Amino acid sequence: MAEHTVSFDIASEPVGVQTGTLLTEAARSAGVEIIQPCGGQGRCGRCMIRIADGTIRRRSTLRLSTQDVEQGFALACQTVVEGDVAVVVPPQEKIERRLSTDLTAAPITVPVGYDYFRDQTVRRVNLTVPPPSMDDQTDDWSRLQTALRKPQFWSTVYDPALEQNQQQMLALGASLPLLRKVGQTLREGQWQVTVILDDESWSEDQLTVRLIDLQPGHTPDSAPLWATAIDIGTTTVTVWLVDLINGQVQAQASEYNGQISRGEDVISRIIYASKDSGHDEMRRLVLETVNHLLDRVCRRAKIESSEIVKATVAGNSTMMHLLLGIPAESIRLMPFVTGVNNTPLFRAGEVGFDICPEATVDCLPGVASYVGADISAGVLSSGMDDTERVSLFLDIGTNGETVFGSSDWLVTCACSAGPAFEGAGVLHGMRATRGAIEEVWINAQTYDPSYRVIGEVKPSGLCGSGLISLLAELFLNGLLDKGGNFNASLPTDRIRRGEHGLEYVIAWADETQHGRDIVLTHVDVDNLLRAKAAIYAGFTVLADSVGVPLDTVEQVLIGGAFGKYINVEKAVEIGLLPDMAWDQFHFLGNTSVLGAYLALLDRKARVRVQDIANRMTYIELSADNSFYDAFTSALFLPHTDLGRFPSVVKELEQIEEQRHVLMENHD
Amino acid sequence: MAEHTVSFDIASEPVGVQTGTLLTEAARSAGVEIIQPCGGQGRCGRCMIRIADGTIRRRSTLRLSTQDVEQGFALACQTVVEGDVAVVVPPQEKIERRLSTDLTAAPITVPVGYDYFRDQTVRRVNLTVPPPSMDDQTDDWSRLQTALRKPQFWSTVYDPALEQNQQQMLALGASLPLLRKVGQTLREGQWQVTVILDDESWSEDQLTVRLIDLQPGHTPDSAPLWATAIDIGTTTVTVWLVDLINGQVQAQASEYNGQISRGEDVISRIIYASKDSGHDEMRRLVLETVNHLLDRVCRRAKIESSEIVKATVAGNSTMMHLLLGIPAESIRLMPFVTGVNNTPLFRAGEVGFDICPEATVDCLPGVASYVGADISAGVLSSGMDDTERVSLFLDIGTNGETVFGSSDWLVTCACSAGPAFEGAGVLHGMRATRGAIEEVWINAQTYDPSYRVIGEVKPSGLCGSGLISLLAELFLNGLLDKGGNFNASLPTDRIRRGEHGLEYVIAWADETQHGRDIVLTHVDVDNLLRAKAAIYAGFTVLADSVGVPLDTVEQVLIGGAFGKYINVEKAVEIGLLPDMAWDQFHFLGNTSVLGAYLALLDRKARVRVQDIANRMTYIELSADNSFYDAFTSALFLPHTDLGRFPSVVKELEQIEEQRHVLMENHD
Repeated sequence: MAEHTVSFDIASEPVGVQTGTLLTEAARSAGVEIIQPCGGQGRCGRCMIRIADGTIRRRSTLRLSTQDVEQGFALACQTVVEGDVAVVVPPQEKIERRLSTDLTAAPITVPVGYDYFRDQTVRRVNLTVPPPSMDDQTDDWSRLQTALRKPQFWSTVYDPALEQNQQQMLALGASLPLLRKVGQTLREGQWQVTVILDDESWSEDQLTVRLIDLQPGHTPDSAPLWATAIDIGTTTVTVWLVDLINGQVQAQASEYNGQISRGEDVISRIIYASKDSGHDEMRRLVLETVNHLLDRVCRRAKIESSEIVKATVAGNSTMMHLLLGIPAESIRLMPFVTGVNNTPLFRAGEVGFDICPEATVDCLPGVASYVGADISAGVLSSGMDDTERVSLFLDIGTNGETVFGSSDWLVTCACSAGPAFEGAGVLHGMRATRGAIEEVWINAQTYDPSYRVIGEVKPSGLCGSGLISLLAELFLNGLLDKGGNFNASLPTDRIRRGEHGLEYVIAWADETQHGRDIVLTHVDVDNLLRAKAAIYAGFTVLADSVGVPLDTVEQVLIGGAFGKYINVEKAVEIGLLPDMAWDQFHFLGNTSVLGAYLALLDRKARVRVQDIANRMTYIELSADNSFYDAFTSALFLPHTDLGRFPSVVKELEQIEEQRHVLMENHD
Repeated sequence: MAEHTVSFDIASEPVGVQTGTLLTEAARSAGVEIIQPCGGQGRCGRCMIRIADGTIRRRSTLRLSTQDVEQGFALACQTVVEGDVAVVVPPQEKIERRLSTDLTAAPITVPVGYDYFRDQTVRRVNLTVPPPSMDDQTDDWSRLQTALRKPQFWSTVYDPALEQNQQQMLALGASLPLLRKVGQTLREGQWQVTVILDDESWSEDQLTVRLIDLQPGHTPDSAPLWATAIDIGTTTVTVWLVDLINGQVQAQASEYNGQISRGEDVISRIIYASKDSGHDEMRRLVLETVNHLLDRVCRRAKIESSEIVKATVAGNSTMMHLLLGIPAESIRLMPFVTGVNNTPLFRAGEVGFDICPEATVDCLPGVASYVGADISAGVLSSGMDDTERVSLFLDIGTNGETVFGSSDWLVTCACSAGPAFEGAGVLHGMRATRGAIEEVWINAQTYDPSYRVIGEVKPSGLCGSGLISLLAELFLNGLLDKGGNFNASLPTDRIRRGEHGLEYVIAWADETQHGRDIVLTHVDVDNLLRAKAAIYAGFTVLADSVGVPLDTVEQVLIGGAFGKYINVEKAVEIGLLPDMAWDQFHFLGNTSVLGAYLALLDRKARVRVQDIANRMTYIELSADNSFYDAFTSALFLPHTDLGRFPSVVKELEQIEEQRHVLMENHD
C-alpha cells in the first residue's frame, strides 16, 4: 500500500509511494525524466528540483547553497519522501546534438598502405550450384559447400603471398535459421545464389567460415557490401557506414550516448547499473542509441539496416561491458578488474544490433579496466605502434588514458582525471554545446575577460577548452598564483569572495543566458588542477617506468573529441601537456572509430590491434607510489619543476617584462 | 464473415466457417482432435466421421464402402462444408503407450571395447582460479582461460597415445549469457568453480572448446554428469538419460511421436508440414514429445533437466528436418534430395530442447532422403562396419532401409515398403498394441485359425507380425497360391467373397472387440506382397550392385522396434527375409538410439558414425531398372525363383507329403 502521494508539476497524475522512496524513483514511476549525470550519487547537483510542499528529508546538501535550501531546492537523487509531496521540476538541461551534424561532414582519410580490399574476413561470392538430379542426390547444404570450395573463391580473396591463405576453407558453419532457408533460396535463384561469408575468427590461420546470409540470384561485383564501425563513447556514440567493396565511409552519424542522463562518467554509470534493473536499462539505452544511429546512416544511404553484414566495435571497457550486459561492478572496485577484455565474436542478433542478425559483431580488445578497446583502436589508427619515433598518445577525458612508446615497446595508464574538463565538478562547467564559453582572453591591465561562445549566443557556462583557456589566462596575468590561489589584492571587482571562497567573474549576470554571474571558484580551480596534474603525472610515471625521459618524445598524438578543440598553447601553459614545439602535437579526432574502421576493413589491422592490446604494459597508478609524488608535483601552474616548462618560463618572463615597461610608462 | 455453422457433438460450441472449408480445419478451430494418420490425403480412412445433418461434399470416397456413405459417414480430411453441418465424431483410435514401459525395463549393454570415459568431448573440470590482486589485474575471462590451460585438464582426458590430444586447448568460446555470469560465479565460488566444456567439433584434431556451463564451487568427481541420447522415430521417440561419468543409462522413456496424428509415414508428414503453418506445428509436436520424455527421465533420476549438458540425436532424414524446422518438401519430390545430411552442431536453446541451453545438440549424419542418421547410427551399433563378415542390416518398416557390406565396403538403399507391416493399407491392420493379433496358426485340415492377441483380450485387428504370420500360414496351407490368390474351392466358409473381392475371415464378429468380422482381403494380400517384395528386391539390387551374391551373407542384423517381434521362420516363408539358418539372424532392438548413445560417449564412435555415413554408397532404387525386375520376381510367395528359398521348398514338400498321408489315411 502506498503511504504517500508525490505529485510532479509536469506529470499528468500523482504517484503513490512508500516512506523512504527517493524522489528519482518516484519520478520514474510518474514518467518524469530527471537527469542524473553523476549516476544518482549527489555529486553533480544537476537533478535539482524544488519542493513546493510536503515532508521530505535531504540526505545530502553538498551541491546546494544555504539559499537553495531556504528556497526549497533539493537534489532528487538525495531526497527521501516522508509525507505527501508536491515537486516542481525545472527545465532539464537540454542535450543538444550538435556533434551529429558536425561529424557527418568530416572527410575520412584512409591511411595509406592498407590493402583492405584484399584481406577482409567478409566475402561475397556469386555461386552457381549444380542442380541435383537422380544421378547426383547430394543434399542442398553439401552441394552449397562443394560449390564454395572452388579455389577461385579463396585464392582471389586471400593474399597469395601467404601460403596458408591459399588453402581451402575447412568447414562452413551456419545458424539454424539460415540452414532453414538454404533449400528454398537455391531453388528460388534457380541454383544461382549470392553467398555472404565471414570467418569464424579474424586470425590469419583460421579457415573456418560461417554463413552470414544467402540470397537468390547473383549480385553485381560492384554493388556495395555494407558494414559498420562503431565507437561507443561514454559521452558520444559514433557510427560509420562502410562499403566493404570500395572501403569508403558512405555515411556517418553521432549522438550522445543514451546512458548520459544516468551518469556522466563511467563510475557513475557503473553505480547506476548496479542498482535494481539498472544493468538492463543501461544496455537498452546504449542499444537504442546505436540502433537509432544505424537507422540514420541507413536512411541516408537508402538501404535496409539488414543489409549490414558486419560490425566492428570500439569503446572503453565500461561501455563494452554495459553494451554486452556483462556486469561492470568489478571495474570500480579494488583490484579493478574487468569481466572480459577479449570477447569472442558475437552475432548481431545476440548483441541486439538491428542489422543482419547473423552479422559478426567484433568487439575490439581492451587492456584493463581503464584502458579499453577505444585506446587499442586509437593506438592502431595513430600508427604509434608502427614507428620508431617515441610517441605519446593521449585521450584527454574523464579517464585520461595515455600510451607511451614506439614500435618496440608500449606502456599505458589511466589517470582518473575526472570529468572536470568535460564541465562536471565545476560550478559553471558544461559540455561543449551551444552557450559554452570555449576560449577566454584576459586584459593584462583591466583584468577583464573577453570570450568566444559556441553558437555566438549569450554564455551559460564554460566548456573544457574554455576552462583551460581561462585557467591559463588567470595564471599568466597574475590573477592566480602558481599554487592556484586567487590574488585578492588586485584592483578588480572580478575577484570577489563568494559562497565557495574566492572566485573570478567571467560574465556578469546581464551578459548571461540565465541571468546569473558566471564564475570560476577556488574549488573549481582546485578540481581543474587535480585533473591536469593527474594527466601530467601519468606521463611522468610512464616515462619513469621504462626509464625513457619524457623529453625524448618526438610526437604527441591526441585523440578524442575533446582533443580537437584544445588550444595546445594554453594546455602547455597550465602544465596539462608537456612543453614541446607545437608542430609535434597532432590532433587525430575520433581515433577509436577510425581504428574500428581499419580493423573492419583489414584482417592485418585486426591482428595488429590485438597485438597492440597484448603488447601494452598497463601501469596501475593507484598502486604506484611514484604516481602520488608526481601528482603532487604537478598540482602547480604549470608544475613544481619549472625546468620542465621552459617555454612557459620564458613567456612569464616576457609578460613580467612588459608589465614593468607598462608600469614604468605609468610612472 | 462466416457463412456456415459447423457443430461437433464432442465440442462445447459450434464454429463459423466459409464454404469450401475442410471438416478437419473446422475441427481444429473447434478444438476437436481428429487423427489423420495419412496426413490428410484421404488414403487411410482413419478420420472417418458421421454427418448427422447438413450439406457437405465428399472429395474422395476411396476408403468408404457404399454402406458407409449411405449411413452418412465421410472422411473429415476429404469433406468440404457447403452449408450448416452437424458432425458426430466417433471415438478416436487410442494410442496406447505400451512401448514406454516396455523399453524402460530393458537393460543396456555397452559393447565391449569402448573406452568411452577417456575420450568424451564433454569435460567437467574443478577449477581453482587465482583471485585478482593489484599486482595481477587480468580480467575474469582471461583468468578463467589461463587456469583452464593447465595440462592436467587435457592430458588426463585425452588419449595420450594420440599426440595432438596432449596439446593445449586453442581457444575457448562462450555465449553472451554465459560470459555475463563468469564474474559473479567466480566470486560466489570464492574462485573455485566447476566448468563444463564441450568441443566446438567432435573431430579428433579440433581443440577449440566451448563453455557449456559454469557453477560456483567444486563438484565431487563421482557426481553424475548428465547427457541424453535421443532417437526420433517416425512412430516412436526414445530418450535415454546417460551419466557421462560412469557411462550408464540411468533412465529411459519412449512414447509415440506427437506428429503421429498428422501422418503415419514420412510422406504424409511432409505433405502435412507443407500446408500453411504445418511446418511449425510439426516441429512443435515433436519437440513436445522430446521435452515430455526428457521431463520423465529427469523426474525418474530426480534431477533438473537443465543439468543435461549434451544431446546426441538420431532419426531418419524427414524426422531430422521436421525437428530442426528445415523444409522437407524436396525429400519427397524428384530427385529426392534432403536439405542437409550433415548438420553443424547446435545449441539446445536454438533447437528447442528443454535442457541446459548451451548444451551441444549433435544431430548424427544421414546419407540420403530415405537413409538417415538412424541407419548410420544403426550400422555403428550393429558393428557391421567393423567386421570382415559380409552382413545385411535391415530396418524393417515403412522405408525398409537396408545396408549390405562389411568393413571393406557398404552399400545401402531404401525400398519404400510402405506402411503395410505397420498395419496401414490393410483393412484390419493396426499397430502392435492391445487387441492386435500378433501370431496366427491355421489348422491344415479345417483351415480354421488360432491366434495370440496382445494383452490377451478380444482381437480388434492384426499387427505386422500377425500379418506375416497369417500370410505364411495361408500360403503353406494352400489357402493362398504362390501368386497370392485365394483358393475359393477349399471346403471352408472362412474364404468368401467380400466387398473387396475374396477374403479370409480370421475372427468372427462374436469373437472380436468391435463386433465385426476381422478379415484379410485380396487387396490386403496384394499390399503385403508388394511390401515384402520391395524389401527383398532391395537385397537383390544391393547384392547385384557390388557383384556379391546374397548367399554369401554371413549374418542378418535386424534393427527397429518391429524387428523385435518378427517371427523369422514365417518371414522367410513368405520371402520377406532371405533363406538362412536361424542363428544367422540377430535382433538388435533400437539400433538408432544405441548408436546415438555410443556416439555420445565416445569421440571415436562419433568419428566412426561420420565415416559410416561417408562410406555408404546410396543406391536410388527408383532410378534403378534392375529394381523393377527384382521387385516383380519377388511378388510371389516366397519368390519366382524357388532356388533362393530351399528351406521353404523343403517345408512345402513335407506339408504336401503329410497331406498325402492324411488323405491316404482318410481313404
